[in-house]
Amino acid sequence: MTDWKTTVEQIGISARRAAGQLSALGGSARTAALLKIAESLRSHRAAICAANVVDLDQAREAGLAAAMIERLKLDPKKVARMADSVQSIAAQPEPVGQIFESRVRSDGLKIQKLRVPLGVVLFFYESRPNVTSDAAALCLKSGNAVILRGGKEAIHSNTAITSAIAEGLEKSGIDPAAVQLIASTDRALVPHLLKLDRYIDLVIPRGGESLIRAVVADSTIPVLKHFTGNCHVYVDQATESIEQKVRDICINSKTSYPGGGVCNAAEKILFHRAAADRLLKKVCQDLVERNVEIRGDESTRKLFPAAVPATEEDWHTEYLSFTVAIKIVDSLEQAIEHINRYGSRHTDAILSSDPAAIDRFVKTVDSASIMINASTRLADGGEYGLGAEIGISTDKLHARGPMGAMDLTTYKWVVTGDGHLR
Amino acid sequence: MTDWKTTVEQIGISARRAAGQLSALGGSARTAALLKIAESLRSHRAAICAANVVDLDQAREAGLAAAMIERLKLDPKKVARMADSVQSIAAQPEPVGQIFESRVRSDGLKIQKLRVPLGVVLFFYESRPNVTSDAAALCLKSGNAVILRGGKEAIHSNTAITSAIAEGLEKSGIDPAAVQLIASTDRALVPHLLKLDRYIDLVIPRGGESLIRAVVADSTIPVLKHFTGNCHVYVDQATESIEQKVRDICINSKTSYPGGGVCNAAEKILFHRAAADRLLKKVCQDLVERNVEIRGDESTRKLFPAAVPATEEDWHTEYLSFTVAIKIVDSLEQAIEHINRYGSRHTDAILSSDPAAIDRFVKTVDSASIMINASTRLADGGEYGLGAEIGISTDKLHARGPMGAMDLTTYKWVVTGDGHLR
Repeated sequence: MTDWKTTVEQIGISARRAAGQLSALGGSARTAALLKIAESLRSHRAAICAANVVDLDQAREAGLAAAMIERLKLDPKKVARMADSVQSIAAQPEPVGQIFESRVRSDGLKIQKLRVPLGVVLFFYESRPNVTSDAAALCLKSGNAVILRGGKEAIHSNTAITSAIAEGLEKSGIDPAAVQLIASTDRALVPHLLKLDRYIDLVIPRGGESLIRAVVADSTIPVLKHFTGNCHVYVDQATESIEQKVRDICINSKTSYPGGGVCNAAEKILFHRAAADRLLKKVCQDLVERNVEIRGDESTRKLFPAAVPATEEDWHTEYLSFTVAIKIVDSLEQAIEHINRYGSRHTDAILSSDPAAIDRFVKTVDSASIMINASTRLADGGEYGLGAEIGISTDKLHARGPMGAMDLTTYKWVVTGDGHLR
Repeated sequence: MTDWKTTVEQIGISARRAAGQLSALGGSARTAALLKIAESLRSHRAAICAANVVDLDQAREAGLAAAMIERLKLDPKKVARMADSVQSIAAQPEPVGQIFESRVRSDGLKIQKLRVPLGVVLFFYESRPNVTSDAAALCLKSGNAVILRGGKEAIHSNTAITSAIAEGLEKSGIDPAAVQLIASTDRALVPHLLKLDRYIDLVIPRGGESLIRAVVADSTIPVLKHFTGNCHVYVDQATESIEQKVRDICINSKTSYPGGGVCNAAEKILFHRAAADRLLKKVCQDLVERNVEIRGDESTRKLFPAAVPATEEDWHTEYLSFTVAIKIVDSLEQAIEHINRYGSRHTDAILSSDPAAIDRFVKTVDSASIMINASTRLADGGEYGLGAEIGISTDKLHARGPMGAMDLTTYKWVVTGDGHLR
C-alpha cells in the first residue's frame, strides 16, 4: 500500500517552494513563461493527441456515455486552441503587484493594500483535458503554484499536457513544481491532500455535487465551491415589444450547449401571467422542436397541455439535460421569491422592457450573475472577458460567479512609518 | 430542555427577512439609522451602565481576573465613546451599491460588477461590550443583518446595548431583527446556529483559539477566522541611523496594550546579528524596565544573560502577556524563513533603513499586515481608517487583516443585453 500521507506532503512542500519563487518573479517573467508553455503545447500536440487516444480507448471499453467521450476527445485543432487560450490568459492585465488602495494619515503613516498571489491552489476537475492548461495558466498568471487533480478518465491526456507545461516552465527557469498533476487516480490520497493546510491556501473543486460535498466535508483548507446551476429565466409582463428576443433567449439559454449538461443553462422559465398568455405556448413549441422535455405547473399545463406535471422536486433540480420546468407567477415579487428560494445563486435572467422591474430584480435576486435581456449561457469567464475561468463560484465570499486570474489573488496591508507608534 | 433547533431557526429566518429589507434600502437610510442608534445609545447610557454593574458583580463573584473585569467595565464616558464610534462608522464611505468594474463588449453586451451586502452575518465575540455596538454598526453600514453571540460574562450589558440599538432601528422604520443578540448563554444552541447555512452567509468568530477551532469544526457556513497573532519585529542590520526609533517601536509593539493581551502585540523580536551587537542589550533593558519577561536563544543569552532560555515551543507561542522571545539571525533571509515558518500571518514588522531589504521583506513575508518602521500595534481597523473593525482576519481569502464595513460585502455580476445570445 502506498504511503499517501508522505507522498502528498512532498507534493505540498514542493508546491509551496515553487510558490515562493513565483511570488518574487515579476509579471513579465510569468507572462513570458506562459508564452513558452503555449509554444510547448503546440510542439507536443502529437504526443498529447496520442495520449488522448489511450484515454478514449479506455473510455469506450468502460462504456462511458457518448457525451462524456466527446468532452474527453482532443485533436490537433483542439490542442492549438488550448495553446491559444494560454496566450490569451498571458495577455490579460497583470493581476498582482498593484497598490490598489493607498492613504497617508496626517501623521505621515502610509497605509496601502498590495495585491499578491494566494500561494498554492489545489484544483479538482473532471473530464475535459483543456481545463488542465487553462487552470495552470490562470494560476501562473496570478503568481500561484497549482496542484491539479483531474478525472481518472483523462489521466493520460493530462499527463501529456502537464509534461508539455513542465517543459515550458523549465525553459523559463521556473521550478516545474509550480504545476503538478497528481499522477495517481487512487481516491485514497484525496483526504490526505485536503489536510495540507500548511502548504495549500485554497481548494477549488469543480465537478459534480458529490465531489464538492466530499471535499467540503474533508478539507481543512478553505474551499471555493462551484455548486449546481439551477438557473432561471423570468419573462416579465413588460415583454410585448421584445417577443422575438424572449423566444430567442429562452431557446439559447436552454439548448445552446449540446445535451444541456452545463451549469449556466436555464433549468426553469418563470412567466408573468400577463406574458404567459402571449408567449408561453410559442416558447414551449420552440423548445419542443429542439427536443426539450417541458414540465409545468398547473397553470402552464392549461396553456400547454403536453407539459409533464412538475413536482416540488423539479423546482430544486438542476437537470443538466434537455429538460425545463415552467411556472406561471402572478407578479415580479413572486418570481423573485421563487428564485431566491429554489435557485442556486448561480445565474438568473430577467427579460423585460420595464426599467423599474429590472432594477428590483437586480437588487433583490441573490445570485452571482444577473442577466438582463441576455442568455444565461453568457455567464462564463471567456464571455466576461477574463481570458478563461477556473470555475464559476456559487459562494458569496472572496469571488462570485466566473473566476479568472484576479480571483486567485489576495492582498497585504503594507504600512510604512518612520518610527510611528500607537 | 429548550428546543434550540427551532429557536435558532426562527432567529435565522427573521435575520434573513431583515437582510432582504436592508438590501433594498439606500445608503442614506442606513446612515440615518446609524445616527439614530448613536442617539439611542447616548440616551440609554444609564440603563446600559446599570446592566453592566450586574455583569461586573457576577464577574467578581465568579472570580474573574482583574484584566477581564477591566475589559468588561463600562461607564457613561465609555458608552458615549461607543456612540461616537457608531457615528464614525456612519460617516465612512458607502460600502455597497457601486458599480466598481464595467466593460462594454464590441457587440454591445454590458458587463458590470455591483457591490452588494453579504446578507446575514453571525458574529461570535468575547467580553468587551463595546464590540456589540461596533459590530452592529459595521454590519448595518454594509447592509447586512447580524446575529450577535457575545460572551456570557457580558450578557446583561449586551442585552441593554442591543435594546438601545433596536429602538434606533424602530425609529428608522427598520426591522429590529436586523440586529439580534442571542439571549441565552447556553452553549448547546451553538451547533444549531452553525448549521443555518440556508439563512446565514458568513460566520466571524473572534476570540480564543479553542472557540475558533470549535466553530470551524461545526460550521456548514463559511467562516472567516481570526486566529492568533504571533507577531514579529525584525531588526535589520541597516539600523544604525534609526536606533532610537528601533527602541521605541520595540517597546511600543510589546507593551502599549496594558497586560499585553492583544493580538497585534509583538511576541518575538528577531535581530540581525550585526544589529544585535549594537542594540539587543538596550532593547532588553528597555523591556525589562517595563516588566517584560525576556526569553532568548543561545546567542541572545550571550548578549543578555538574564534572558530565560527559549524552547522550540516559544517560537510558536502567542503569549498574550508581557513576555517576549528574542532570536538572533544571520541574514534577512533567515528572518523571513523564521517568520513564514512560525508566524501566524497576522502582522510582522521590519525596522530598517535599507530599501532593498524592506522590499524583499514586503514581497516574501506572507502576512496580512507588513509594518515598515512602525509599531505592530498599528494593525487595527481604527488606525487604518476603517472607522472600526469587526476583527482581524488571518485568512487569505475574501478579507485579510483588519476588516471594516467594505469587507462585509460581496458583488454581483450584472450583465445587460438586448437579446444577446451565446
